[in-house]
Amino acid sequence: MTLFFIGLGLHGAKGIPLISLEIAKKADKVYLDAYTSPISQYEINSLQNLIGKEILTVGRDFIEDGLEIINQARKKDVVLIALGDPMVATTHMDLRLRAEKYGIKTHVIHNSSILCALPGETGLHVYKFGKIVTLMKSGSTPRATVYEVIHENLTHFLHTIILLEYDHSTGFFLKPNEALESLLNMEKDFKQGIIDDETFVIIASRIGSESQILSGGKIKSLIDKDYGEPPHAIIIPGKLHFTEIDALKTLLKIDDEQITDNSSKAKILAVNMIKKYVMSARKALLKARERSEAEKKNFNDLFENVECYISDAERFLNMGKYELAILSIGYAEGLLDSLRFIKELEIEW
Amino acid sequence: MTLFFIGLGLHGAKGIPLISLEIAKKADKVYLDAYTSPISQYEINSLQNLIGKEILTVGRDFIEDGLEIINQARKKDVVLIALGDPMVATTHMDLRLRAEKYGIKTHVIHNSSILCALPGETGLHVYKFGKIVTLMKSGSTPRATVYEVIHENLTHFLHTIILLEYDHSTGFFLKPNEALESLLNMEKDFKQGIIDDETFVIIASRIGSESQILSGGKIKSLIDKDYGEPPHAIIIPGKLHFTEIDALKTLLKIDDEQITDNSSKAKILAVNMIKKYVMSARKALLKARERSEAEKKNFNDLFENVECYISDAERFLNMGKYELAILSIGYAEGLLDSLRFIKELEIEW
Repeated sequence: MTLFFIGLGLHGAKGIPLISLEIAKKADKVYLDAYTSPISQYEINSLQNLIGKEILTVGRDFIEDGLEIINQARKKDVVLIALGDPMVATTHMDLRLRAEKYGIKTHVIHNSSILCALPGETGLHVYKFGKIVTLMKSGSTPRATVYEVIHENLTHFLHTIILLEYDHSTGFFLKPNEALESLLNMEKDFKQGIIDDETFVIIASRIGSESQILSGGKIKSLIDKDYGEPPHAIIIPGKLHFTEIDALKTLLKIDDEQITDNSSKAKILAVNMIKKYVMSARKALLKARERSEAEKKNFNDLFENVECYISDAERFLNMGKYELAILSIGYAEGLLDSLRFIKELEIEW
Repeated sequence: MTLFFIGLGLHGAKGIPLISLEIAKKADKVYLDAYTSPISQYEINSLQNLIGKEILTVGRDFIEDGLEIINQARKKDVVLIALGDPMVATTHMDLRLRAEKYGIKTHVIHNSSILCALPGETGLHVYKFGKIVTLMKSGSTPRATVYEVIHENLTHFLHTIILLEYDHSTGFFLKPNEALESLLNMEKDFKQGIIDDETFVIIASRIGSESQILSGGKIKSLIDKDYGEPPHAIIIPGKLHFTEIDALKTLLKIDDEQITDNSSKAKILAVNMIKKYVMSARKALLKARERSEAEKKNFNDLFENVECYISDAERFLNMGKYELAILSIGYAEGLLDSLRFIKELEIEW
């Protein structure tokens, strides 16, 4: 028979599509995953009334073990209902794969998940989201990884969605405030200068539910607020298109001065580094020219090449070709410094 | 009153959630967007029967103009139904923002879209998808952008979803074969060595529908097949986790030898470039040492520094610090070449 994975989406019991309702009504057994996302007893009851048969609420161990579900699916139609999209949680994917390997047909009815809904709720363009990360208090995702992903995305002007840990078994969930605190601490540790009090973030709470709230602003103006029950997610926007800014102001009612371009921080870093090299190379070249004149030495051919490669570095920088810019400035520095190593001329940096 | 945006999801008329059905039944006016995604007359009729009232099928101009919808929403509850998630299409977002600015309440009932469903249907981890692109035959997205996004994602080991153009007004859709052809041509033009006949891709056709097909394999083995009606999308996987490979083999029935690591191509590029520089610098240094001995000149101090910076480049390379590796090798080359510019020694590369 068939093992059906049905997504409940973001809109409570009534978020279930007709096709899923039909499948669940016909099915011999209906399970509800109550641990990958929070769901209230009220919603569970309404879902039960809609389907008109008993729903067995199951937890982590039951799904991870999965043997009972798989054995039943050999001879019966079994349904596993999950909030959001049923395949986002890896446990469900694992279960699906194991069933398929046992020769059991599996079928997925997809639904919305917070990842799909966030672009539409914020007005941020779906094409401008980069890699997604989850922030765990327990730190089972290394903080360095979270920070790196944000940095990577920002250097490519992309938005980052940060999902916040939720653990049904213990009822623990990472509060947005703690998450922001943790982001500021990462900055202290990894020092790439991409996150500070002024960083513009969006906190998405209970997306799709009646009590959905989206709060946008600088970290300093959001870090002390209370965001209530989970689920929560944080968005670190990258470069914002004017239509995105318009949407944020219209949908989230954010004031202009709260909205800043986080990506500039990340980009400025590489650019500034090269600019600094270029400047100091020019200074060193200038001193070297003076000194060689004073010492009646002629390195003009070399100096002109140094000058050329410094200009190349600037040109590549403006073209956004950072590797070539670095290669050129490195080469220019080498040319110049050589005079020091062969004791021909003192080079000051 | 309220303007409701309702997503139909991926599973046809019956993909509509109960909550959306209730809203549509109560609404004074129900529109269906028939241009951002393909929908059959059969599905439109079934949807009409489910809602039990007339559905007005509208096209691009009507929604982009939007005035009629907005004016009706001032005093009536108006519903606009769209396939997939209603907010993925920017036209719908524009309409929502304009309505909000007119003081009209808007409400979105989200649903699944191909972007949300693809991870679950392929088994590729949702955390490993990078930026999304659309490939247009008409080329309104520059081909360079599509190629750059794939390259960017691959260098960070990420998967790329490429949506293929669909234009309801003309009935035109970009066939997966043409898209693959176009990817191979991009490689000819931009020469980063990331795409060829051996590149492993996944073609997703009509995801969520009864006739859904997922085909995975090397471009050469997929480029001549027929993929039928739209919508289609192509995935260029990045680095694959063994659980992802397991899922692809189980769900898509792909043979092992069809699956290759596309990301290696992109990474190897930077690495090979630096390795090549390192090698040629060593060769040039060797010759320079010989020649300076022959000419009874002493540049040992300089040569040792060149040697040091070449080794630094290698060390940084092994640490994955490409910028520093490039800076070091550039510096080493500059040190060595200087002797040529000051006519002290012939340097051969």
